[in-house]
Amino acid sequence: MEKKGILTVVSGFSGAGKGTLMKELLARYPETYALSISATTRNPREGEVDGREYFFKTREEFEKMIAKDELIEYAKYVENYYGTPRDYVETKLDEGKDVILEIEIQGALKVKEAFPDTLLLFVTPPTAGELKNRLIGRGTETMDVIESRMRRACEEAEGMDRYDYLVINDDLEECVERMHEIIRGEHDRSFRNKEFMKSIKEDLERLKGED
Amino acid sequence: MEKKGILTVVSGFSGAGKGTLMKELLARYPETYALSISATTRNPREGEVDGREYFFKTREEFEKMIAKDELIEYAKYVENYYGTPRDYVETKLDEGKDVILEIEIQGALKVKEAFPDTLLLFVTPPTAGELKNRLIGRGTETMDVIESRMRRACEEAEGMDRYDYLVINDDLEECVERMHEIIRGEHDRSFRNKEFMKSIKEDLERLKGED
Repeated sequence: MEKKGILTVVSGFSGAGKGTLMKELLARYPETYALSISATTRNPREGEVDGREYFFKTREEFEKMIAKDELIEYAKYVENYYGTPRDYVETKLDEGKDVILEIEIQGALKVKEAFPDTLLLFVTPPTAGELKNRLIGRGTETMDVIESRMRRACEEAEGMDRYDYLVINDDLEECVERMHEIIRGEHDRSFRNKEFMKSIKEDLERLKGED
Repeated sequence: MEKKGILTVVSGFSGAGKGTLMKELLARYPETYALSISATTRNPREGEVDGREYFFKTREEFEKMIAKDELIEYAKYVENYYGTPRDYVETKLDEGKDVILEIEIQGALKVKEAFPDTLLLFVTPPTAGELKNRLIGRGTETMDVIESRMRRACEEAEGMDRYDYLVINDDLEECVERMHEIIRGEHDRSFRNKEFMKSIKEDLERLKGED
């Protein structure tokens, strides 16, 4: 019903398979979705293409984008900036594409502040036991690595309640379809269809006047 | 994910085809849904069976149900009571059935008050023009009938914003699937999965302790 796209932020536990999930969603419904492309000041790795994996920027360019409010959100990790260019997202939404953006919780909440209609999805393994297995890995990790994953998962879990939906990633096929259905269902939300409701009401008022 | 059923209230413009829609939804997914059966003091019509179309009650029985808080909501139309028995709804929800309840807006809002997790769906024709056609009918209606429909539709339209989702009834098949998807998607809402989130968090805390 609602023709404008919905901005969907996807977060989730590390190792929950967000990347694969989104790649599959995009591959299956290329007309429906667009993946938001982040800007970053880090150097391109081999095989990465500017405007496909990232928009690669110098520090000066990135800071100019910040100053001009051209980023919906940004953060600095290990001396490098990462951010979401506003222009790309807004253009795609206006084209009617549902835009998918993968970022962690702090970024997700900033996006929700800038675009209150943003849909927040949290990807999680089906059970706590499964999450445990993914955190511990194949027994080849050092205690340091496991502890750091554990701390991170605890932080991630704290934010889960702030998300609109939980998406269980057990079977990839099933998970992609659930995510697609959730986003499609959201298009029918009343608050996303204010124009439609307004036009129905106006028409009824006009009809009443014609009696 | 969430195993307990969701209570869904369906309202909508008169003539929007709610009855047919729900009959088809139930026929297609009999394991998933249960239709809430109203209690009433009106006399059974030919072919109506107690416990199928309605629970038929005497006025004394009905008023006893009111006194004992056995109805989620009730109203009186033309000297007859109509209401939603709490017991039937709660039993079906506990069995994991999604319970569908067709009532008008005043009742819908009362149900939402008693069960805040209730999902409110509003069924509407696809366009204001189509609604107009359905209101005016085939040109065989008296002005009185049309005026009364118009007034009613205006009242119904006023409440639309209070519903969670709008369901466009254009093509029946499509509409049934949309409704099914919306309700299924709602099962993945974070606030309906507090137990799941709690268990994930507790398990992570325990894991951290085991380091």
